[in-house]
Amino acid sequence: MMGEPWLTPEAAEAFPEADRRALYDAVALRRDVRHFRAGLDVDAATLDRILGAAHRAPSVGHSQPWRFILVRDLARRQRIRASFLRCREVESERFAPARREAYLSLKLEGIVDAPLNVCVVVDLRERGEAVLGTSVQPDTLRGSAYCAVENLWLAARVEGIGVGWVSIVEPAVLRSELALPAGVEPVAYLCVGHPVAFRRTPMLEEAGWSSRLSLGEVVREESWTEAAA
Amino acid sequence: MMGEPWLTPEAAEAFPEADRRALYDAVALRRDVRHFRAGLDVDAATLDRILGAAHRAPSVGHSQPWRFILVRDLARRQRIRASFLRCREVESERFAPARREAYLSLKLEGIVDAPLNVCVVVDLRERGEAVLGTSVQPDTLRGSAYCAVENLWLAARVEGIGVGWVSIVEPAVLRSELALPAGVEPVAYLCVGHPVAFRRTPMLEEAGWSSRLSLGEVVREESWTEAAA
Repeated sequence: MMGEPWLTPEAAEAFPEADRRALYDAVALRRDVRHFRAGLDVDAATLDRILGAAHRAPSVGHSQPWRFILVRDLARRQRIRASFLRCREVESERFAPARREAYLSLKLEGIVDAPLNVCVVVDLRERGEAVLGTSVQPDTLRGSAYCAVENLWLAARVEGIGVGWVSIVEPAVLRSELALPAGVEPVAYLCVGHPVAFRRTPMLEEAGWSSRLSLGEVVREESWTEAAA
Repeated sequence: MMGEPWLTPEAAEAFPEADRRALYDAVALRRDVRHFRAGLDVDAATLDRILGAAHRAPSVGHSQPWRFILVRDLARRQRIRASFLRCREVESERFAPARREAYLSLKLEGIVDAPLNVCVVVDLRERGEAVLGTSVQPDTLRGSAYCAVENLWLAARVEGIGVGWVSIVEPAVLRSELALPAGVEPVAYLCVGHPVAFRRTPMLEEAGWSSRLSLGEVVREESWTEAAA
């Protein structure tokens, strides 16, 4: 509203207790989902709300550099999944034999099982004018698109929709399959649909692949110091 | 819990309406804050909840590569702000005269006004074992840290705490001031404190610097297509 740029003073306060809890629940119960219910699409209104949340992410210089490409075509998704299978095979070689076996037993994607894939891309091309805030930290454009991924993911969680991020896929394949022009880069390839369930803990933690760090291990005071061993 | 890796079936459903709305409100009312209330610190329990939310971000291969450095020392913050002032002067030259004047009139940081700065950094150093999921998209490590920034920001919003992201500061200054070792990179330098208020719309939109894109302008079907002019 004109002449009324601020929210009411009350709106500057904390959210009510129940609303604070809802936010923390969404954060705590968000999962990387790889198991989807077959044949159940995400309805259009829900998808609009989820993408709307993504589009409300912070962006450097108000650049809004993200674009969301909705991929449903099965043949295209199968070709993208073929890239996943190739990359997984190569990546598995990075692990020692016992770990390699564990790695190959993990379900790491739902590209074809999910009814919808969303590729979040970032438009890094020159604009008519410089983007405020990017001269010394140009990576913040990508950073803005990553923040949009997290908003999308949290909104999906409260809608009961699962999201799985597939990073084991060749950017060149995404560029080609999605016809990205030079300067438009894939940021996150997401599988989206109704989940079989949300796990209690992250799958890699549950599977014993890795363990969760304590908050004390990731917080430092004033400057970098190596965490106590 | 052992043998109980899934949440109850009900937990796989959408959140109740009021909780969904709380999440969308947090997303919609989050603002980049540059005006802070003087002399009012963020209490320790609130800060722990906010950092805890950041630490629950998604991370590639469960790598949890983020670290949060809490900066309160005034002399350190003044040196960091000096970098901002230098960079702002240089960046302003990227704009045509009228826009340059507008640019210089904008308040773009609250480094010293806020009681607390948080530098989110990412640890990209080699570990004992490869990080699952990073062989073809290593940037997802940085992406994980950016997702943590967004979680931090949303949690702060529901707590009534303001966050402002300063990208106009030299990474080399942050590396030196925070004693970051090689391979640990600054991702986001955040000012954190009680805001004077939360604006109704993003400051750059309110100031007429830029305008918001519609959702239709950022969503594409199946592949990249230039938006209609």
